[in-house]
Amino acid sequence: MICIPENDYPMSTAPVSPADFAPLRLRKDEDRRLRAGHLWVYSNEIDVTATPLRDFQPGQPVEIQASNGKALGTGYINPNVLLCARLVSRDPAHPLNFSLLVHRLNVALSLRQRLYPKPFYRLVYGEGDGLPGLVVDRYGDLCVAQITTAGMDRVKDDILAALQKVLKPAAVLWRNDGAMRELEGLERYVAEASGTVPETVAIEEDGLRFQIAPRTGQKTGWFYDQHDNRARLDRYVRDRRVLDVFSYSGAWGIRAAAHGASEVLCVDSSAAALAQAATNAALNGVADQVQTRQGDAFEVLKALREAREHFDVVIVDPPAFVKRRKDFKEGALAYRRINEMAMQVLERDGLLVSCSCSQLLPRETLVETLLQGSRHLDRTLTVLEQGRQGPDHPVHPAIPETDYLKVVFARVLPV
Amino acid sequence: MICIPENDYPMSTAPVSPADFAPLRLRKDEDRRLRAGHLWVYSNEIDVTATPLRDFQPGQPVEIQASNGKALGTGYINPNVLLCARLVSRDPAHPLNFSLLVHRLNVALSLRQRLYPKPFYRLVYGEGDGLPGLVVDRYGDLCVAQITTAGMDRVKDDILAALQKVLKPAAVLWRNDGAMRELEGLERYVAEASGTVPETVAIEEDGLRFQIAPRTGQKTGWFYDQHDNRARLDRYVRDRRVLDVFSYSGAWGIRAAAHGASEVLCVDSSAAALAQAATNAALNGVADQVQTRQGDAFEVLKALREAREHFDVVIVDPPAFVKRRKDFKEGALAYRRINEMAMQVLERDGLLVSCSCSQLLPRETLVETLLQGSRHLDRTLTVLEQGRQGPDHPVHPAIPETDYLKVVFARVLPV
Repeated sequence: MICIPENDYPMSTAPVSPADFAPLRLRKDEDRRLRAGHLWVYSNEIDVTATPLRDFQPGQPVEIQASNGKALGTGYINPNVLLCARLVSRDPAHPLNFSLLVHRLNVALSLRQRLYPKPFYRLVYGEGDGLPGLVVDRYGDLCVAQITTAGMDRVKDDILAALQKVLKPAAVLWRNDGAMRELEGLERYVAEASGTVPETVAIEEDGLRFQIAPRTGQKTGWFYDQHDNRARLDRYVRDRRVLDVFSYSGAWGIRAAAHGASEVLCVDSSAAALAQAATNAALNGVADQVQTRQGDAFEVLKALREAREHFDVVIVDPPAFVKRRKDFKEGALAYRRINEMAMQVLERDGLLVSCSCSQLLPRETLVETLLQGSRHLDRTLTVLEQGRQGPDHPVHPAIPETDYLKVVFARVLPV
Repeated sequence: MICIPENDYPMSTAPVSPADFAPLRLRKDEDRRLRAGHLWVYSNEIDVTATPLRDFQPGQPVEIQASNGKALGTGYINPNVLLCARLVSRDPAHPLNFSLLVHRLNVALSLRQRLYPKPFYRLVYGEGDGLPGLVVDRYGDLCVAQITTAGMDRVKDDILAALQKVLKPAAVLWRNDGAMRELEGLERYVAEASGTVPETVAIEEDGLRFQIAPRTGQKTGWFYDQHDNRARLDRYVRDRRVLDVFSYSGAWGIRAAAHGASEVLCVDSSAAALAQAATNAALNGVADQVQTRQGDAFEVLKALREAREHFDVVIVDPPAFVKRRKDFKEGALAYRRINEMAMQVLERDGLLVSCSCSQLLPRETLVETLLQGSRHLDRTLTVLEQGRQGPDHPVHPAIPETDYLKVVFARVLPV
């Protein structure tokens, strides 16, 4: 028996079975992309004569059909958005319900349990785990979940029940405060789904401890996506002076200090983030090596350059500068500026770790940006390594939107 | 004092100084790519009126100049090839000579010494280390060097002398048997440059030992480029049944066995490679877990499928199927076939590690190929990780040809 605790968030509708499924008919040939692996249906691909959009409710489960009526699988629809429907299962007998959620969570969990010795990882990454519209980060006994689509919101109770069945977490928090929810007509809120969620929780990453704030921190409180890239930096930092720009709560910088960096400066615009970085430095016994400096990253880099400060390693891990297509030009310029400024405070033989989580910025553009910056400063840049999001964020190969994180490890030398 | 031992390979010319340098004048605007970071000059970019190609000897050092006569730096030329000249230094005062070689070797070595606890790595990777036309793999006390251009061949004695000064290796082997040498009008040979090169040498990779054959093995005897990708596989293989296709001397498979794989089958067409794999398995105490099977990879995969054999992890690390542009279509098809066949012998929840060292095959094409194969078999594929060549093969960001290795870790599930 699954025990779903009472709670005060909006109730979703009752579980669905295939019989409830309204057909969603695609136009001729619009089944091709789905057959080739994709999971998304745009509104202009729908045969609105056969299945008018006005007949659907936001989040309603559907059977997606080719133009000849052949079922492609089950999914859900939101008639009010351009990215209108998502395929959840290619088996028409498997609707998005408690049973499918349990199955998909188990499949997701088995991978993570193999890869991570401790229960700290992203457990569910939307389309990459066959659950479009759902993200779950696991912080030990606490699960922090985010729902971004009406179709997934509709089975919210089932999600909670499935998490209880598969993981038995002490607490589950809805971090349903993402901007995407507005597009889907969903309210934005943060609320306990079950158990008691503390203000801060302690997580572990490869033997290091970090305190994070699941209710108030960025995203769900921690960036698991950079785990492997941070690990990759370990071998570069012994006895080095390290600058961690956009440090947030110090994940990169503190790890560097713990791996022997002689000195680390964490820069962030948020005093709260830096206070947490200081706490985290102390937690790991590296408070003496780690300094913090509050301020705008561009301003601080300028000041450091003017003070002729130099670092052996500079990490630049900014928030997405290109959030929407129309931001591209300006955002690309910001990447160019911040990376060139970072190179200006690098030692003669320095390592630049340059990150971009802007899905719309191609990896090649980031590398090209670094090259241009290095040429402008008359330096020689080579790329030693490149990273992406870790395996707890599986990329769906047909959906480029699921592949967003780029990290370039570049050696910067005199010309 | 540098002591260059006598040897029987063709002598190169005397060391060069800037005064020896003939000017090589580019046509209008053809300096742009070089200023933007590139190092290569094609013959149609040269102002042959000002500096006729017929006046140059293969390998001759040159000062590369913009159309207005401004020096862009020093390099070398081979008038007989399309990729005609390469920039070696942007400082016109630094020709390619003993002193520059020593400097570049030291810069290359300092990176490797930081990254690798033991002396087993690629020490020089051509353009990525500022030494176009030169590759040096380090096997402890032995250096195996490859020269691919006439310009680098001209300073062969200096290379040897510089290696002696920087590393003092017990022996240096020229593996000057690459096909590219013919294009440059250079003879192909394998010869001791100094010291005594044994038939086999032992190397270490993260605590494991491998015996390799520097004189007769593929390339220089070992593929350091996959080191980090092999390390990445460690966490996926415990208690798993692993198939290593195109295993060569067992680098992937033996590592998997050492990390707890229950059973490993190494497949290769070369009996000599498999004999070495068996030796290496014994060296690491995993002979009981590792089997070998000689045969064509496509044939063996077909036979395994027909025998209904299944593996939890399949590694496909073939030789380049796309060596030249005109091979693209056929080569891409070969990648498609081999990977689909690999998926056919995967367990229901399996990991495919698919590699391509064909520089001409885009990374996106490899991923697309895997997606197509999975859809054809009605399975769901997600990409967990992607790898590239390790940091001892630095990529020159302006030269895509230096970025060749692609590895995709894909999870393959039932639909």
